[in-house]
Amino acid sequence: MNITFPTLLIDSRIAKENIRKMAEKAVDLGLNFRPHFKTHQSTEIAKWFREAGIDQCAVSSVRMASYFARNGWNKITIAFPVNILEIEAINRLAGSIELDLLIESAASVEFLSLHLKSKVGIWIKIDCGYHRTGIAPYQTDTIDNILKKIGRSERLSFKGFLTHNGSTYKCQGADQVLGTHKKVLGDLARLKEYYLPRFPDLQISYGDTPSCSLSKTFPEIDELRPGNFVFYDVMQVQIGSCSFDQIAVKMVCPVVALHPRRNEAVIYGGGVHMSKEFIINNQGKKVYGCVCSIAGSPITPCLEENIASSLSQEHGILRLNHDYFQDLKIGDLIEIYPVHSCMTANLMKNYLSEEGQAISMLNLLQL
Amino acid sequence: MNITFPTLLIDSRIAKENIRKMAEKAVDLGLNFRPHFKTHQSTEIAKWFREAGIDQCAVSSVRMASYFARNGWNKITIAFPVNILEIEAINRLAGSIELDLLIESAASVEFLSLHLKSKVGIWIKIDCGYHRTGIAPYQTDTIDNILKKIGRSERLSFKGFLTHNGSTYKCQGADQVLGTHKKVLGDLARLKEYYLPRFPDLQISYGDTPSCSLSKTFPEIDELRPGNFVFYDVMQVQIGSCSFDQIAVKMVCPVVALHPRRNEAVIYGGGVHMSKEFIINNQGKKVYGCVCSIAGSPITPCLEENIASSLSQEHGILRLNHDYFQDLKIGDLIEIYPVHSCMTANLMKNYLSEEGQAISMLNLLQL
Repeated sequence: MNITFPTLLIDSRIAKENIRKMAEKAVDLGLNFRPHFKTHQSTEIAKWFREAGIDQCAVSSVRMASYFARNGWNKITIAFPVNILEIEAINRLAGSIELDLLIESAASVEFLSLHLKSKVGIWIKIDCGYHRTGIAPYQTDTIDNILKKIGRSERLSFKGFLTHNGSTYKCQGADQVLGTHKKVLGDLARLKEYYLPRFPDLQISYGDTPSCSLSKTFPEIDELRPGNFVFYDVMQVQIGSCSFDQIAVKMVCPVVALHPRRNEAVIYGGGVHMSKEFIINNQGKKVYGCVCSIAGSPITPCLEENIASSLSQEHGILRLNHDYFQDLKIGDLIEIYPVHSCMTANLMKNYLSEEGQAISMLNLLQL
Repeated sequence: MNITFPTLLIDSRIAKENIRKMAEKAVDLGLNFRPHFKTHQSTEIAKWFREAGIDQCAVSSVRMASYFARNGWNKITIAFPVNILEIEAINRLAGSIELDLLIESAASVEFLSLHLKSKVGIWIKIDCGYHRTGIAPYQTDTIDNILKKIGRSERLSFKGFLTHNGSTYKCQGADQVLGTHKKVLGDLARLKEYYLPRFPDLQISYGDTPSCSLSKTFPEIDELRPGNFVFYDVMQVQIGSCSFDQIAVKMVCPVVALHPRRNEAVIYGGGVHMSKEFIINNQGKKVYGCVCSIAGSPITPCLEENIASSLSQEHGILRLNHDYFQDLKIGDLIEIYPVHSCMTANLMKNYLSEEGQAISMLNLLQL
């Protein structure tokens, strides 16, 4: 492999192991497993899920659903509040696959009732305290009103409640993650108990990589829907969802300048490659990525040292330990674990396998 | 125009006016104008510069240079520390256009001396206090050593010193910008004075949108090299480089959910569209974009109210004044000025003109 510019390497062995573990957990617990494909956005990587026995997925846009549907995926939940402006594309999808949509307002249900031409499954989005979007589980009047409207439509079939426990992204360590997980599961259990008499088939779909990675129990949950776990990343290491050696993707970037007085290397690799997402480490410093290999020699990654300390459009600044810095040369390649693999993959639009093969992903310009 | 998903609108009238003003300033001051094309990355938009009499540009990568060279641009500076691993592509470019490269180490010069097959211009990168990269202006021993090596090569022709006064990006208001501008210009003037006797043709290339927008004088500077000014953005409004009505690009995003208790609208439009770049406003709040139109009705944008207050991968959260919120409906389109137009354009990979025409840009997958 002759890498000459910023490149996203994927370790298929690690990714397949991450898939295998999560799929096994779901099977062991008797849960449906519907992985979120927004992380990898690749039909080639989707095949690794197929090999692990998965035949359904969640996505975060109509265009992502169209891409996977065209490539043989015929059970898809668009786990994003339905964008009614895309009704034409939704109708095309609903006419050809088992499509589930996510709603959280009576207005969206009314629109779908009027304009849908085929049957779809409907999930109601529940906000379990993350406050990004969704209906609070105690707002049963709102939910009842929506359920009434769903019930009046021949095309809409109520599936259940869907939530993203995003609060776990603010946690550090398994104890905090499991704490919020337990609280949210309590809210969901009460919601299920309330509606189960009227809707005996209703399901609860639950997803977020930290809880799904760390918890061993999911009482009252029917479906797991994590996405990031296929690659993991530095953010998940900080949360405690994984260790560095479970991260399946890394950026490879050339060194273009060296600053010995501050032990800083400048790489060709910036915000247009890795994204501007960062974490704050225990020293209060911004971390945009963690170095894991220097000029072909692996190093032990950590959140405090040997980090990408800032990124501009194409520049990355690496702050390195002096021992690592002093042997570095212009033109050396540095490998870096990304802070948020979903954002990095979305920017890079291409993976390179360890065998040197290009792995393609969704390209919106080709849709 | 039937916009149904996140779309980047460009107002060609505003962009052309931004180009005209900056080109006129350069002409009036007798300066060479070499606009940085990393902001728009589009040969179609590059034509607007050509119409304003510009026939040269700066770019931030070899691949960007190749794209513009293939589309008729034959005077290009790659204003990024040379990535020696791309020597093959550099040689192809150097053989066909007037190519200038940026260096900041003797090692890079030695490599180029050995491997270049055609002549190139060489700029030495100067760090004027921003400390991203470059050689400090007082490090004349380092510079002398590099100049000696440049002098020994038949292929390398020393052009002068190039700097990016990135410190202006930490400023708020014209006074602060002009303060750092004056200081940096002093350093550059001393550097020029020191080397001019030996290199009577040496030039100083200077670029950053805040100084180039706000200053009326550029003593000892020979070339202006700003990029962002073609579009401007919310960050530039906060710095004071422009007003909102000079911003030439805006995101158009559909409303997918409404949260009346907190006057928040959820849009389809997140970090994969606008980037995760943010500013901190005077209230200490993160701002990821400023709303400028709601359901077809323009509103007065500002940094404090009616802002994108958080973004995840595909979701954007807008915090709106109650008066604007209360009339909003699911499916309405919201227009938003981006915080950092370079990052947004790079993510969107496509512009839509106000006449409904698609304007393409560099697509690395097609190179």
